[in-house]
Amino acid sequence: MNRIQTFLAMVLLPMLAAAQTVTSPNGKVKLTFSLTDNGAPTYALTFKDKPVVKPSRLGLELAKDKHASRKMKETDLMDGFKIADTRTSTFDETWKPVWGETAAIRNHYNELEVSLNQPATHRNVIIRFRVYDDGMGLRYEFPQQKALNYFLIKEEHTQFAMTGDHKAWWLPGDYDTQEQETQESRLSEIRGRFNDAVNWKNSSVAVFSPTGVQTALQMKTADGLYINIHEAACVDYATMHLNLDDKNFVFESWLTPDATGLKGCMQTPCQTPWRTVLVSDDARDMLSSNLILNLNEPCKIEDTSWIHPTKYCGVWWEMIVGKSSWSYTDEYPSIKLDRIDWTKAKPNGCHGATTANVKKYIDFAAANGLDQVLVEGWNVGWEDWANHWKRDVFDFVTPYPDFDLKYLNEYAHSKGVKLMMHHETSSSVGNYERHMENAFRLMNQYGYDAVKGGYVGDIIPRGDHHFSQSMNEHYLYVVKEAAKHRVMVNAHEAVRPTGLCRTYPNLVGNESARGTEYEAFGGNRPDHTVILPFTRLQGGPMDYTPGILETQLSTWSNNKSWVRTTLVGQLALYVTMYSPLQMVADLPENYAKFNDAFQFIKDVACDWDESRYLEAEPADYITVARKAKGTDNWFVGGKCDENGHRSIVKLDFLDKGRKYECTVYADAKDAHYKDNPKAYTITRRVVKKGDTLKLTQAPGGGFAISLIAK
Amino acid sequence: MNRIQTFLAMVLLPMLAAAQTVTSPNGKVKLTFSLTDNGAPTYALTFKDKPVVKPSRLGLELAKDKHASRKMKETDLMDGFKIADTRTSTFDETWKPVWGETAAIRNHYNELEVSLNQPATHRNVIIRFRVYDDGMGLRYEFPQQKALNYFLIKEEHTQFAMTGDHKAWWLPGDYDTQEQETQESRLSEIRGRFNDAVNWKNSSVAVFSPTGVQTALQMKTADGLYINIHEAACVDYATMHLNLDDKNFVFESWLTPDATGLKGCMQTPCQTPWRTVLVSDDARDMLSSNLILNLNEPCKIEDTSWIHPTKYCGVWWEMIVGKSSWSYTDEYPSIKLDRIDWTKAKPNGCHGATTANVKKYIDFAAANGLDQVLVEGWNVGWEDWANHWKRDVFDFVTPYPDFDLKYLNEYAHSKGVKLMMHHETSSSVGNYERHMENAFRLMNQYGYDAVKGGYVGDIIPRGDHHFSQSMNEHYLYVVKEAAKHRVMVNAHEAVRPTGLCRTYPNLVGNESARGTEYEAFGGNRPDHTVILPFTRLQGGPMDYTPGILETQLSTWSNNKSWVRTTLVGQLALYVTMYSPLQMVADLPENYAKFNDAFQFIKDVACDWDESRYLEAEPADYITVARKAKGTDNWFVGGKCDENGHRSIVKLDFLDKGRKYECTVYADAKDAHYKDNPKAYTITRRVVKKGDTLKLTQAPGGGFAISLIAK
Repeated sequence: MNRIQTFLAMVLLPMLAAAQTVTSPNGKVKLTFSLTDNGAPTYALTFKDKPVVKPSRLGLELAKDKHASRKMKETDLMDGFKIADTRTSTFDETWKPVWGETAAIRNHYNELEVSLNQPATHRNVIIRFRVYDDGMGLRYEFPQQKALNYFLIKEEHTQFAMTGDHKAWWLPGDYDTQEQETQESRLSEIRGRFNDAVNWKNSSVAVFSPTGVQTALQMKTADGLYINIHEAACVDYATMHLNLDDKNFVFESWLTPDATGLKGCMQTPCQTPWRTVLVSDDARDMLSSNLILNLNEPCKIEDTSWIHPTKYCGVWWEMIVGKSSWSYTDEYPSIKLDRIDWTKAKPNGCHGATTANVKKYIDFAAANGLDQVLVEGWNVGWEDWANHWKRDVFDFVTPYPDFDLKYLNEYAHSKGVKLMMHHETSSSVGNYERHMENAFRLMNQYGYDAVKGGYVGDIIPRGDHHFSQSMNEHYLYVVKEAAKHRVMVNAHEAVRPTGLCRTYPNLVGNESARGTEYEAFGGNRPDHTVILPFTRLQGGPMDYTPGILETQLSTWSNNKSWVRTTLVGQLALYVTMYSPLQMVADLPENYAKFNDAFQFIKDVACDWDESRYLEAEPADYITVARKAKGTDNWFVGGKCDENGHRSIVKLDFLDKGRKYECTVYADAKDAHYKDNPKAYTITRRVVKKGDTLKLTQAPGGGFAISLIAK
Repeated sequence: MNRIQTFLAMVLLPMLAAAQTVTSPNGKVKLTFSLTDNGAPTYALTFKDKPVVKPSRLGLELAKDKHASRKMKETDLMDGFKIADTRTSTFDETWKPVWGETAAIRNHYNELEVSLNQPATHRNVIIRFRVYDDGMGLRYEFPQQKALNYFLIKEEHTQFAMTGDHKAWWLPGDYDTQEQETQESRLSEIRGRFNDAVNWKNSSVAVFSPTGVQTALQMKTADGLYINIHEAACVDYATMHLNLDDKNFVFESWLTPDATGLKGCMQTPCQTPWRTVLVSDDARDMLSSNLILNLNEPCKIEDTSWIHPTKYCGVWWEMIVGKSSWSYTDEYPSIKLDRIDWTKAKPNGCHGATTANVKKYIDFAAANGLDQVLVEGWNVGWEDWANHWKRDVFDFVTPYPDFDLKYLNEYAHSKGVKLMMHHETSSSVGNYERHMENAFRLMNQYGYDAVKGGYVGDIIPRGDHHFSQSMNEHYLYVVKEAAKHRVMVNAHEAVRPTGLCRTYPNLVGNESARGTEYEAFGGNRPDHTVILPFTRLQGGPMDYTPGILETQLSTWSNNKSWVRTTLVGQLALYVTMYSPLQMVADLPENYAKFNDAFQFIKDVACDWDESRYLEAEPADYITVARKAKGTDNWFVGGKCDENGHRSIVKLDFLDKGRKYECTVYADAKDAHYKDNPKAYTITRRVVKKGDTLKLTQAPGGGFAISLIAK
C-alpha cells in the first residue's frame, strides 16, 4: 500500500524543481518547498526524518468577478508560477500573555518566505512557512499590486497529504455547527461513519461532503506520531474545513461559503489564515504547544488592566436542565418587541432570571469567592427567540419586569460580585450590530465587564453561515467594539477559535464545541473531555461550564439525562480544560450537598504561571499540573475516559525544600460514572518535591489535587 | 380573441361563489370579490361598468420552514378558503401633508373586508379592498393566530387579468436596477422587445423573466382607459414586480427574493403592501391621484417642523459629466481606510469637493436663494468605491484633506445656506448601519439637516437584492434613524417609493429611476420626463436633478453627450416633475450664461397649495398649474416629447378680479432639442382669470410660466 501511495505522489508531482528546505530550531521538523514542473507550489513536512505531510499542492482557485471585463478570463492562483525570490530567517522572542497556561511564551521558529510570480498574469503571491519544533504554519500573502487588487475565492486548495490510514478524532465538517460528538476512526472509515456522526436533529446541520471534517483535527499514525491540523489567525476569511480524498489520504482545504457560494472576497494587501500542522511523537506536545498563539499577532489592546480571569456561577443550568425558563410569559403565540406591554403580560411562573433568584446566586458567589454571576433570560424576547428567522428578536437593553437591573447590579457590587451580561443574538446579526453600542453602554452604566454571547440558529442575513468570512469578521468586530467599552467576550456558537485571543485578549472564551449543556440533552461520552484539549482547545479556551457535582439531574428536576463523569471528574476539568473563564455551573443547593468537594472549585485558580502536561493520550487520559498565577501553589488535574486510568504523579515540579499542604480529591474505589459517580475521597497530607502520588481514576472519572505552599 | 379570453377565464374560474361587491364613492369603480368553488379568492374591477381587471386570483404560496416538523406539509394560502365574515365600511377624511402637491388630501373610499378561513389548516387571512373613485387597493392581512405565526413566502400570486393587449409603458422587471429606459409597446410585444430593453452594460442588471416588468406600470386600453398598477406602503416586504402571461394578458405578482430565493419571512400580525390599480378615462387622473398616499399610514413623526422643501445646487454635475472627480488621489491601486495617511496621498488634481470649489457653490446658492449645497466626494473612500464588494468602503465621517468640513459649514451658515450631506453606501449595507449613528451625529454637530444617500452596486450581504424584504426594511430603518436626528433623506438607487413619505415625511425624495445623470451617459429619450410622472412618480417624489441649461456638455467638458430637451424644457421640469426637493443641477457658470432663463428656477416654488393637471397623455405631454405654498402665485409647466406640442392654457384657476405679472419662458419658434435647444423667448404681460395663453412647445421642449399676484 505504501509503495502504491508513493508511486501516486510521484505521478502527480513528477519533477520537483529545486527544493527549498527549512528546519525547526531543534532540527527535528523539516519543511520542503518545491514547484512542480508546471509551476504549482508544493510542500512536504517531516518529523525526525519521517514523512508527516507528503508532497502536497498549494494554491487558490479564483471565481470570476461579474464586474470584470467579459473578455477577461479569471486566472487561478494554482500553477504557472515561478520563484521570484526566497528568503529564510529566524525568530526568537518570549512574550507574556495577558492570561494563559504559562506566564511567558517562547515564539521560536525558522521562516521560509517564497515569493512567487505568475508570469502569465503578472501576479505575485508570497507563501510564508514558519517551522517550529512542534510543527509548522503556512499562509498565502497577497501584496498590493496592480494585477491583483480585488479577487474572489472559489476555493482554497491547500492539501495535506497524509502518509497512511491514520487514526483520527473528527467532527463532521459543517458550515454551521461544531456541536457534534467527536468520532474516533481510521481515515478510511470516515465515509462509512459520516451519516451516523451527524446529529441530524441539530437544526443547524449544514454538512457538505461525506469525507469533510472540521479542524482542529487530531490524528495518530500507526508508528506513534501525533499530527494535528488546524488554522491560526482566521481574520476576515472563511473558516477552513478539510475534505478527505480517502483513496489517497489527502486532505484539502474546504472553505465555508457565503450565501452565493463564494468563499472569499479579498482586497490586497491581505493574507489567508495560517494553516497549521502540529507534530510530535509525544502526545503531551499537542497540549503544551503554543504554535497557534504564536502565529497570531501580538496584543492590539494597549491597556489590558481590565481583562481578568473569571470564575462565575449563573442562572443557567436550571434552564438548560428544564426547571426554569429563559422566557417570562407563555401567553402569546409570538412576540413583537415594539408592540408588547410587558407589565401586562402574564408571567409563566418559572422564569429563571427573577430578582429573587439572581440574588440567591449573588449571595452564593459572594460566599464562595466567585467573581461573577451570569444571568440568562434577563432581557425581553425569549418567548420566540429561536429558529424563526426573526430579525428584531432582542434589543439587549430591556429587562423583563421581574428582573431589577439596577438593584441587582448594586446589590452584587455591594457584595464584591459583578453580574455577567448575556447577549443571545439568535444569529440575527444585523439586529445585534444595530443594538450593540447601546447594549455595551448599558453594560458600562451598570458595571458589567463581561458578556456571554450566543449565535443559536440560522444566520440572518439568510443564506449566510456561522463560519463564513462575513461572520468571522462579525465575531471579531464584536470583540473589538467590546474592547472599546472594556468588555470581555465569551461568544457561544461562534466560530471555533484560532488563537485570536493573543491579539484581542478580551476574547476570554468561546463555546464552539459540544459543552456541558449536552449532559442535560442525553450526555457527552466519557472520553469527550480528554479529546477536546487535543481538538477544540487548540485555538483557544472553551467555556465548557464544568462543575456539575449533582450528576443525576433527576434528583432535582424532571430531566432524565445524567452526567457522563464522576463527581471528581467534574473537579478535574477545572485543571485539564484550560480556560481563564471557568463556570461553576451547578446550582448552589447542589454544591451545598457536596461542600467538601466544592472546596476544590473554590480553591482552584484559573490563571497560571506554569503548566506541565504529565501524561496524555487522545481520548484516553490527560494529567496536568499548573502553578497558580502569582503564587507558589499548584493544582493537578487528571481526567480519563470510560476505561479508568492509573496515574503516578511525581511531584518534581514543586519548589525544592518547600512543603505543601496537599489535598487529593479522588474517585472512591467503587466509583463509576454510570452507577456510582458521586463516590469520592478527600485526603490531606503534606508533600514535598520528589514525592509521588499514586492515583486511580474510575471509569469516566479523574482526580484533582491542590498543593498549597506552606 | 376577446371571446377566447373570456372563455379561458370561465374555464379557470368556473363557478364563482356568491360575490361581494363594493363600489367607489361616486359609483364609477366597482370591485367584486368571489371565491371559486375550490375556495380560491378572486376579484374583478370595473370602471363605468367596463371591465378593467377581469376575475383574477389572489393568494400566497408558502415555503416550508426547515425547522417545521418533518411530517408537516407546508400549506399554501391559495385555496380551500371559506368566507368567515365580510364587512363593508366607508371612510372619508381630509388630511394635510407636511409637503405636497396640494395643501390637503381627501381620503375617501369604500372598504370591503373579507375574512377567510382555511378549514384544513385553521388559518385565517383577511383580504381588504379599498375602492376609490380613481381605483382600488387590496392587501392581505394575517392576524396573530396559533395556526399562523411565522411563515415563509415562496411567492405571492396576486393576479391582474387585463382585458386585452393594452399599450404599456414598461421597464424590465429587475431585482436591482430601475434605471432602464421605459419601453412603449403592446403587452404582446414585451417578450420580443425584452432583451433590447435591458441595458446589459448596467452592472446591476438582475432580470428574472422575459415578460417581467416593474411597477408603477402605466397602460392604456384600445378604448381609452388608463390603468396603472403599483403598490402602496411596502414595509418589511419584498418589492413586487409583475410577470405577464402574454397569451392571456394576465399579470401576476413576482416578489424580489432574498439570497436563498425566499421571498418573504413573516411574523403575524402582519400584512402585505397594498396592490393598487388606478383607472380612469382621463389621463390627468393618473397624475392627480392620491390613492397611493392615502393607502399609507398617517404621519408617525410628531414634530415635523424641521422638514422643509429644499432647492439645492451642488458639487455633482461636474463629476457626472467627468470634469472633476469624487476621488482625491489616483495614487493607489486600492484603498484600505484604516491603513492610509490621506495627508500624504498625492492629490489627483481634479477632486471636485475642495474647499475652494464648495465655497463657490455656497456663494452661488446664497446669491440665488437656494437653500442647500450638496457635496459629493467629500469623504474618504471614493478611490475604489464601486463594484468591488468592498465592505469597509466608507466611514461617512472623515473628510478628504482638501475639504474643510468645519469651515465650510460655518461659511455656508454665515450666508444663510446649509450644506447637504452625502452618504454613498456602495450598497455595503452593514457597513453603513455600523457607521450611521456617528454619521448622523456628525451631521447634527455641523448643522446638516438633509442627506442624499446612494446604493450603487451589488448589495453586501452578497446575494441580497436592492428590492428585497431586508433591503426595504433597511431603507426605512435609515429614514427612521434619520428622523431621530431631524435629518431628511433622499436615497438614490434605493427601492422605488410606495407612498411611505406620508408616514415618514422626512423621506423627501428618491431616485429609483433613470435621472438626469443619464443625459451625460448618452441621453434620456425626450419623452422620458412625460412618462415618469405616470410611472415612477406614483409612489413619491423623484430627485430628478433638472435644470441643465447648458444642454451641450461639450461646451465645457470632454463629454460628448447632450441633453435631450430644450433649455426651456429643463425649466418646465420644476413644475411638471413634482418634488419637494429640487436640484438646480447645472454649474454656476452655466447659469450665468442664461441668467434671464435662470430667473424662473430662482422663482419657482417647490411646495404647493394646489395643483391642476391641465392636460396629459403618457409619453406625449403634461401641463400642470400649481399654486405656490402660502402665496397667491402660480407656476405653470408644460413638457412634451420629441414631437412638440401646442398647449392652450386657460387661466381660469387664478383668483377672480386679481392681476398677475405673467412671465412666459417658451421655446423659440425654431427651437429643437436636437439642433437648437437653447433658443428661447421670455415674454412678460399682466393677466387675469379667464385669459388664455397659447404656447408652442418645440420637439423635446416645453414651457414655464410664473404668475405673480400683484
